[in-house]
Amino acid sequence: MSATSQPEGLTKARIEALTDGVFAIAMTLMIFNIHVPQFVHSPSAVGLGRSLAHLWPSFIGYAISFFVLGIYWVGHHNQFHFIRKTDRNFLWLNLLFLFSVTLIPFSAALIGQYSDQRTAVTFYGANLIATGLFLFAVWKYATNGRRLVDADLSSEVVRKASQRILIAPVAFVLAIILGFVNTRASLALYAAVTIYYFLPSGIDMHWQARDRKLKPPTA
Amino acid sequence: MSATSQPEGLTKARIEALTDGVFAIAMTLMIFNIHVPQFVHSPSAVGLGRSLAHLWPSFIGYAISFFVLGIYWVGHHNQFHFIRKTDRNFLWLNLLFLFSVTLIPFSAALIGQYSDQRTAVTFYGANLIATGLFLFAVWKYATNGRRLVDADLSSEVVRKASQRILIAPVAFVLAIILGFVNTRASLALYAAVTIYYFLPSGIDMHWQARDRKLKPPTA
Amino acid sequence: MSATSQPEGLTKARIEALTDGVFAIAMTLMIFNIHVPQFVHSPSAVGLGRSLAHLWPSFIGYAISFFVLGIYWVGHHNQFHFIRKTDRNFLWLNLLFLFSVTLIPFSAALIGQYSDQRTAVTFYGANLIATGLFLFAVWKYATNGRRLVDADLSSEVVRKASQRILIAPVAFVLAIILGFVNTRASLALYAAVTIYYFLPSGIDMHWQARDRKLKPPTA
Amino acid sequence: MSATSQPEGLTKARIEALTDGVFAIAMTLMIFNIHVPQFVHSPSAVGLGRSLAHLWPSFIGYAISFFVLGIYWVGHHNQFHFIRKTDRNFLWLNLLFLFSVTLIPFSAALIGQYSDQRTAVTFYGANLIATGLFLFAVWKYATNGRRLVDADLSSEVVRKASQRILIAPVAFVLAIILGFVNTRASLALYAAVTIYYFLPSGIDMHWQARDRKLKPPTA
Repeated sequence: MSATSQPEGLTKARIEALTDGVFAIAMTLMIFNIHVPQFVHSPSAVGLGRSLAHLWPSFIGYAISFFVLGIYWVGHHNQFHFIRKTDRNFLWLNLLFLFSVTLIPFSAALIGQYSDQRTAVTFYGANLIATGLFLFAVWKYATNGRRLVDADLSSEVVRKASQRILIAPVAFVLAIILGFVNTRASLALYAAVTIYYFLPSGIDMHWQARDRKLKPPTA
Repeated sequence: MSATSQPEGLTKARIEALTDGVFAIAMTLMIFNIHVPQFVHSPSAVGLGRSLAHLWPSFIGYAISFFVLGIYWVGHHNQFHFIRKTDRNFLWLNLLFLFSVTLIPFSAALIGQYSDQRTAVTFYGANLIATGLFLFAVWKYATNGRRLVDADLSSEVVRKASQRILIAPVAFVLAIILGFVNTRASLALYAAVTIYYFLPSGIDMHWQARDRKLKPPTA
Repeated sequence: MSATSQPEGLTKARIEALTDGVFAIAMTLMIFNIHVPQFVHSPSAVGLGRSLAHLWPSFIGYAISFFVLGIYWVGHHNQFHFIRKTDRNFLWLNLLFLFSVTLIPFSAALIGQYSDQRTAVTFYGANLIATGLFLFAVWKYATNGRRLVDADLSSEVVRKASQRILIAPVAFVLAIILGFVNTRASLALYAAVTIYYFLPSGIDMHWQARDRKLKPPTA
Repeated sequence: MSATSQPEGLTKARIEALTDGVFAIAMTLMIFNIHVPQFVHSPSAVGLGRSLAHLWPSFIGYAISFFVLGIYWVGHHNQFHFIRKTDRNFLWLNLLFLFSVTLIPFSAALIGQYSDQRTAVTFYGANLIATGLFLFAVWKYATNGRRLVDADLSSEVVRKASQRILIAPVAFVLAIILGFVNTRASLALYAAVTIYYFLPSGIDMHWQARDRKLKPPTA
């Protein structure tokens, strides 16, 4: 940890800290949009169970939103693995990304309550697309001319990461269009996107490269 | 802090940061499910006191949930002591674990309001069991074939940690069954589990080992 | 950063991370207990101003609670400056402390709404006293027989830190008693305690000692 | 990382952790002040869209508040780049700054609901001005006689940072005055301030200086 690298690390560390904080809060707080069923009289076991079951669109909307946030958090995480420096524009692009992230709990509440409404499906999709595009802009800005990454970062890593980030927004455009035909099919597509990201991909190479380096275990 | 260990540390550090954030928020926000009593007319000292006393099931539910979250946080903490690397699957298993954690404030609000309802006791238990099983899955995945831990990590540590993690879900299954007989006895069992975890155990060995190493104090 | 000190640092770092998270959330979220005034018809400028002015007990309760949380956060911060190791009991004492901290937003909402009620003043005080005593227990446990601190930590530091922690709970006992005579005087005493802690004290010596060491500036 | 610098780093790190936490929470939670439209009957697509469109003052208020928080977070971030030590007064000045930050979600909710009311515009502006002045006080305290910064920190950096911090509060004074004439023009000025801060400035020199140092890339 040399004197020159410390300030840079600090800056990057604080953007990461704010990002992790915003994501942790957005992911945890969306559950507070789902309210415990209220009854005038003490409910029967069946009555309470049925009321909980009726909340399923809210729970589905919550689960999708949680894992979409997870996708973007992992995406941000992967990007920052390659970031070496920061600058003012980069900071503000990150804040625009985070602004879009903080709107997701509102959009999630909207789709949880109006899952059968095209307007809700579209608003939700637009929010998720904007978030993905801001994340893409962060990556583009950092890698253009290798501005904030290592000068020898391969074009393949840059391209694969870009592709991976853009898959979600593209799929969400399809989900919005699908929502004009059938809102349930649209929701299913949103869910499918989160499952797709569970699968391994080329961008994981930084983990594999690391594994190889670590083969002779170091303490 | 060599060049090879830094990326690994970063990744692990950010999962920890997100985890600590989610736990801190879930633990702190549950209190917002307990509302200050409202009155049409300014209440008497006795009236306000009585209203607060009537909130006891909510406070009990809150306290149990806080310390169950504490148990899982300590469990995660202990696991990560042994984690040396991460990979994509590991990351997503952690997100599934966190997803289940974020549902706990909802379940806690449910049991706080319907502490005398089997449905609520079962829902609460199911949430806590799922959380414990995801935490177990994280550990299993990391230690199978010593995938993400030191190659020489003893089988005893792996087994003892597994046992310790699984005690809570097993006890919560019993609590659900007990709930069909008596919901108060069920709540008492939930509370007993949190007290059990206060007691020392074999998995603490990493602390004791550390103590021994530190005997010749290092500044 | 030797191999032996790292695990210890990690553990301590995560307790600090959870603590900082819980405090940040409790301090920030209390404001959500103060609701923007609602009107049936669009209010006049004077009407809105008057409604805001009527919220003063809530704002006073909020400000006192924020700075009491600040006192305990600084207290925890000062303690952890001296902590070298952790163990299971220490971890759970910290969780008990944090549990009491998370109740403060509820107590603050209670006193904000019922600032003229002895019951509210007593409940609030009891919560703050419990928090202070748990913080004291953390310090006592860590320093008894120099269990988790440097073996050569002076008795003077231990004693002064204890005194400083205990001043707040003792003053809060007086505030509760005063509340039986006059609730406004009681609130004033709560406020006075936070101001007292702004003033410098003997426990600041660790800062002063550090300053001296740093006199020959090290980049 | 020498033995002398570590305690200092720790203290600074925890103030940063609390600050990042408070900002992340305030920035993320303000969205919870905007409520999903409720209907007695299931709304039409147009009806839901219109209700969302009617929320625009809340969204504008939210966006302005988010980016004003961003400005102050970046400002704090820039200051801490130069901070080398901390002391008790500095800690409490930071807490006063954070107290003012935590009031912003309330002020944002107020202006979101009463964007056409002078009282709301004034209250909002006063909160933002107070926050800026506390941030200025933190910087003044730290740099006076180079109290907590490097002894050789240039007067130019100190002065430029002061100017940059003070631009926002001064503009907000104008926004309050403008609010007495036209509340929309006032809101536009608040928004213009956030855009101004997107632009580069002299205080960015620490980034540029770092870039130069890093020219011969270090791993």
